[in-house]
Amino acid sequence: MNEVEWWRLKAGELNALAARNAVVILPVGSTEQHGPHLPTQVDALLAGEVAHRAARRAAQRTPVVVAPTVWSGLAEHHLSLGGTLSLDLATFHALLRCLVRSILKDGFRRVLLLNGHGGNIAALTAIVNDFAIEFDAPIATTSYWLLAADAFGKILERQANVRHACEAETSMLLALAPDLVDMARAQGAVGPTGRELKDAVGTEAAVRYRSFKSRTSHGAIGDPRAATAEKGERLLDAAAEAVAKLVATEEFWTLPA
Amino acid sequence: MNEVEWWRLKAGELNALAARNAVVILPVGSTEQHGPHLPTQVDALLAGEVAHRAARRAAQRTPVVVAPTVWSGLAEHHLSLGGTLSLDLATFHALLRCLVRSILKDGFRRVLLLNGHGGNIAALTAIVNDFAIEFDAPIATTSYWLLAADAFGKILERQANVRHACEAETSMLLALAPDLVDMARAQGAVGPTGRELKDAVGTEAAVRYRSFKSRTSHGAIGDPRAATAEKGERLLDAAAEAVAKLVATEEFWTLPA
Amino acid sequence: MNEVEWWRLKAGELNALAARNAVVILPVGSTEQHGPHLPTQVDALLAGEVAHRAARRAAQRTPVVVAPTVWSGLAEHHLSLGGTLSLDLATFHALLRCLVRSILKDGFRRVLLLNGHGGNIAALTAIVNDFAIEFDAPIATTSYWLLAADAFGKILERQANVRHACEAETSMLLALAPDLVDMARAQGAVGPTGRELKDAVGTEAAVRYRSFKSRTSHGAIGDPRAATAEKGERLLDAAAEAVAKLVATEEFWTLPA
Amino acid sequence: MNEVEWWRLKAGELNALAARNAVVILPVGSTEQHGPHLPTQVDALLAGEVAHRAARRAAQRTPVVVAPTVWSGLAEHHLSLGGTLSLDLATFHALLRCLVRSILKDGFRRVLLLNGHGGNIAALTAIVNDFAIEFDAPIATTSYWLLAADAFGKILERQANVRHACEAETSMLLALAPDLVDMARAQGAVGPTGRELKDAVGTEAAVRYRSFKSRTSHGAIGDPRAATAEKGERLLDAAAEAVAKLVATEEFWTLPA
Amino acid sequence: MNEVEWWRLKAGELNALAARNAVVILPVGSTEQHGPHLPTQVDALLAGEVAHRAARRAAQRTPVVVAPTVWSGLAEHHLSLGGTLSLDLATFHALLRCLVRSILKDGFRRVLLLNGHGGNIAALTAIVNDFAIEFDAPIATTSYWLLAADAFGKILERQANVRHACEAETSMLLALAPDLVDMARAQGAVGPTGRELKDAVGTEAAVRYRSFKSRTSHGAIGDPRAATAEKGERLLDAAAEAVAKLVATEEFWTLPA
Amino acid sequence: MNEVEWWRLKAGELNALAARNAVVILPVGSTEQHGPHLPTQVDALLAGEVAHRAARRAAQRTPVVVAPTVWSGLAEHHLSLGGTLSLDLATFHALLRCLVRSILKDGFRRVLLLNGHGGNIAALTAIVNDFAIEFDAPIATTSYWLLAADAFGKILERQANVRHACEAETSMLLALAPDLVDMARAQGAVGPTGRELKDAVGTEAAVRYRSFKSRTSHGAIGDPRAATAEKGERLLDAAAEAVAKLVATEEFWTLPA
Repeated sequence: MNEVEWWRLKAGELNALAARNAVVILPVGSTEQHGPHLPTQVDALLAGEVAHRAARRAAQRTPVVVAPTVWSGLAEHHLSLGGTLSLDLATFHALLRCLVRSILKDGFRRVLLLNGHGGNIAALTAIVNDFAIEFDAPIATTSYWLLAADAFGKILERQANVRHACEAETSMLLALAPDLVDMARAQGAVGPTGRELKDAVGTEAAVRYRSFKSRTSHGAIGDPRAATAEKGERLLDAAAEAVAKLVATEEFWTLPA
Repeated sequence: MNEVEWWRLKAGELNALAARNAVVILPVGSTEQHGPHLPTQVDALLAGEVAHRAARRAAQRTPVVVAPTVWSGLAEHHLSLGGTLSLDLATFHALLRCLVRSILKDGFRRVLLLNGHGGNIAALTAIVNDFAIEFDAPIATTSYWLLAADAFGKILERQANVRHACEAETSMLLALAPDLVDMARAQGAVGPTGRELKDAVGTEAAVRYRSFKSRTSHGAIGDPRAATAEKGERLLDAAAEAVAKLVATEEFWTLPA
Repeated sequence: MNEVEWWRLKAGELNALAARNAVVILPVGSTEQHGPHLPTQVDALLAGEVAHRAARRAAQRTPVVVAPTVWSGLAEHHLSLGGTLSLDLATFHALLRCLVRSILKDGFRRVLLLNGHGGNIAALTAIVNDFAIEFDAPIATTSYWLLAADAFGKILERQANVRHACEAETSMLLALAPDLVDMARAQGAVGPTGRELKDAVGTEAAVRYRSFKSRTSHGAIGDPRAATAEKGERLLDAAAEAVAKLVATEEFWTLPA
Repeated sequence: MNEVEWWRLKAGELNALAARNAVVILPVGSTEQHGPHLPTQVDALLAGEVAHRAARRAAQRTPVVVAPTVWSGLAEHHLSLGGTLSLDLATFHALLRCLVRSILKDGFRRVLLLNGHGGNIAALTAIVNDFAIEFDAPIATTSYWLLAADAFGKILERQANVRHACEAETSMLLALAPDLVDMARAQGAVGPTGRELKDAVGTEAAVRYRSFKSRTSHGAIGDPRAATAEKGERLLDAAAEAVAKLVATEEFWTLPA
Repeated sequence: MNEVEWWRLKAGELNALAARNAVVILPVGSTEQHGPHLPTQVDALLAGEVAHRAARRAAQRTPVVVAPTVWSGLAEHHLSLGGTLSLDLATFHALLRCLVRSILKDGFRRVLLLNGHGGNIAALTAIVNDFAIEFDAPIATTSYWLLAADAFGKILERQANVRHACEAETSMLLALAPDLVDMARAQGAVGPTGRELKDAVGTEAAVRYRSFKSRTSHGAIGDPRAATAEKGERLLDAAAEAVAKLVATEEFWTLPA
Repeated sequence: MNEVEWWRLKAGELNALAARNAVVILPVGSTEQHGPHLPTQVDALLAGEVAHRAARRAAQRTPVVVAPTVWSGLAEHHLSLGGTLSLDLATFHALLRCLVRSILKDGFRRVLLLNGHGGNIAALTAIVNDFAIEFDAPIATTSYWLLAADAFGKILERQANVRHACEAETSMLLALAPDLVDMARAQGAVGPTGRELKDAVGTEAAVRYRSFKSRTSHGAIGDPRAATAEKGERLLDAAAEAVAKLVATEEFWTLPA
């Protein structure tokens, strides 16, 4: 099976992929507190894993390569709970701009910023649109759990979709790296433990900054108690399948900009 | 009835409102092509009108003032159709930062960036979170048609919610400034006229920059033919009611950050 | 008579104006404390009104359109008196750059930044020169009361030209929006009430930042007691005439850069 | 007589001056084409010379020190004639900000940016006002020939005040560094040789970027033929006297900001 | 043995390390072409590996944790050979600033930016000094092969120290990830194959940008033919020992700034 | 002998030099505390003097011109001792970028940033590489005492090369401007007087910000007691010779980038 990881490939192999107009998946995650039972790099790990699985699937239909994972995003709201590395918006923008510019200079044209962190969604949407001012190439973004929302909803028992350090993320970690999960500590990490904005105003359409510390005493939101490795495996595969399908959809890349 | 418009108030009156901890609504819109039948400043006009109506309603429950409307946002995707004024992301960010900083220096603490332009949603979400790094105050944002989504869905006949130069926007303009609407030209402005990304990939969770020019030959998306001034009046009132309720919800502003 | 306001025009109409090489007037004002008797948006209101009147006059000689008014400028010196919205220099620069860039992308080439706020004069001069590094088009600026200085001097009784919340501004507001003027409060809003830098050093050639709060207890500089609507009307017309003449002077735009 | 040049002083001597609350004069000039008969650094040389003479005079009344001359400013309009070094506005701003910040960190509080280049006037005015947002200290600016306008008008024969590579500048160079002046070449350098904006519109209140190349074939504006070293000496002394008086006027520095 | 990798740790564990004043090692590498025989992420892999080994050794003497590896640095000079991801200087600066700021907010105080890429050395030196303006904490940097220069010189046969895709890097990769090395292709990758600046001017003290493409036809500089896994193991251990010693030297962190 | 100083030349003369593809030497120094016996502008003075002497020598082999000296660099580490003017890294970068851009616009292509300040070395190396992204021209940098290291080592008695306010700098100042040197105060300025990082960790490969104030009570590092004007003259000539040779080496400028 062919290698799909940029970091493992040699320059000549990447140049060959560029010549074949391969799609570049750039996973974007975060390193931040993930409750008492999960390690800090969950969002980056999962974005990278979904990208890897998706690339393996898509590679049969279209050339594809996975760039290294951007492991730091917008996580200011986690900083007061410790263990968190966060970028400000301008730096996140500049970092992705340099990476995309490099990818284009390397001869690729199609780039998917595959997001694994809720705090990045809005910024990535704004940023890929801003790139259109500068770059003449299709630069796209998606968040894997939103792309696979239907499948995720069917797999999860206590949540509709991914939250933070929750049934979904814990399950996927149990599938991917069980030694990094402390299920004993997951038992009490059910949240939110504080009052939520949504409850106060009845909608998620109103946005106001809130730290996780003010929302949950332990750092998790969701219910990790129902997590299992088997669910995690199914979630990862569903996400990979959705991303692979997107990557291999020619029209997604060729519809005029 | 008391004046709620910042631009009409004198400094002393604004200082008195600041002393009473009034909420400042900062409407944020856009000036951009709006199809063959609508003027370019629809999004800014409507954001300002909703803010004004909301402030009149909310003023009975909490002090509130409406700042002048930011009439330019992220509209790069409209530029190739002409008549459009657009900011890049960094400038949009800097502009709002200076305005919020001024509002806080003027003695206010609670600020709502009330959005009236689809292209601004993601950026505003990212930006208000970024402000949390710098400002120690509750800065919030919402888009009026998302906040009033339920009511809008019931009023509109051919769309679930607001699109661009559509049934909803045309209706509201007919209510607000009928002389600026050319319904004769609206008859053919039904769109999209080009193939849409969503149809290609079956979801809106995947984002890729696309100009309006590539999606619609006339600049509109939606169906303005069903627009009426009566619907427009109801939409404006529904939006105003939802925003007024949000503004007057103490807990929205006081939940710890 | 043809419409000259960008915000009221449809994209197609603006494209037609661009095709005719219309001059774009971009009014630039401020929103800031204006003494006890005037509303905060005087400078933006007057810049927009002069632009509108000028465009109506010039339109008979050359195609012209008035962009929406930039209602926030450099007003740090007013912030400590409240009611003020101010941009820093870099943001003011970036905002105008994005707007000018959009106007050029929309197909126009000739742009006049018509200033209505004393605090913006120096920055606008520096900024339009800086634009020459980037844009290959004639971008100009003027302040209406300086352009019409001779006429203004003849109309005003107690001042040589416009000051702040003074005979001139109060007169023009009385002509434009008398309901926003409180002449009862104008009676005491005379002059600087504190010692002025100019008196200390005998010249205005030496510049040092001074807040209005340190110069005047009430926020006004000048003598609004002599203001009348009739004077205001004459001032507005004189300003409009001067701007119209400038806009319609072909050589102003075509002299080589 | 005590040394007033920062660059010649030792750190301990500067610390002693800071302890005495000395005024720091920071000369700001330009390096740019100056017609066929003058060297490129006229504006920086003269700003430094005026600062030096002023400091010597003022030192008897108030402690004062002259920082090294910022020899590059906003000179984009000279670049197409060659020999020119120019900064863009943001860099000019950042450079002065760092220097002022350093001067304040060194223990001084009063700073005068003494300008010697017409292209810097507007930017310096905007910039010192912008510094007020960040620095809690009196930062001032003036242009020596405007401060000494009355005296200059009496000394000059063919001009009211300084222009570019003109009677005034040539005279001052003849006084300061006659070996750098080529009076033979000055004879034909009388300008402008092209049509001027002012003539087209009848006022200098309308500003539009124009390169010197488009205004004068030789790079000079004014009439250097009437220049003499004796006039130059008188001009330098008049400028120095005006600056010295300003520097030593306590009220200029102490009037509340 | 205790875990030292930030990404594998939970927030609570990191908070405990911060409370013990642990040193944070932030590895900084690059992703760039590495000749025909090595994968693109050599510099990031090795920086991370040295950091890991160093942390394990130092942990017996002082608490220490290894942040995730910054895998992109200044690699513009490799871009024309493909497979390269590069940041510009301002973005590299901003990225590291955000990460350091986060680490300090997380409660740590001592940070070592452990570099693994030649192109980053100068920038890191300038950047850590610049951080001193903003952060009141000991932020340090070193490049592992310079810190362990003596040991490296004794282990290597054909080079004095690390070059690019050379005996040293190839050896270390053979030790760390032999499946990523293609020694068959290493045989011809001996360089430089073009004329070097140093040969032209006889010194490395004169710096001028040169792309690797202009210096070597295959992308390597040095002689990878002499590489062995055994040497690589010794090199990695020598580097780890040197870094561990530095990290555990109390005086390095406590000498007054 | 022909003039080599940009500031003394007229635009036409510079244009002629540009037409001959002259090398532009841009000296970059610093203005900062230099111990009790030396003036603050040592680094700028010496960079300018070496540039001047080098240009005179090189001019016989290749056309060359010396731009004015950038007299402020990265000197944050000297600020707490007073008398220091420092730029932050971004401003230093922007300043040099504008100057290089101007030089290229003036028609020159070859630029040497000749450094005279230790604190600038790393930044200049990073910056000239960063310029390669933007400018298509050979922009180089060197520090004169590193370029002439061999010669300097032979001339100096108590140091291997230049330090700060030391035998070398004091000697060169004695040769260049003896009236600015106070040898009586040099007697005690032997340093460092505090403990050095290098002694703590045994290498200079580990970099951590340290102020000069924390390293030396008097501001000097090295031993100025051995300084003589004769040594200074030899040092200046050796530096000039090395720079002249570099400037005149065609291959240095023409090797492909």
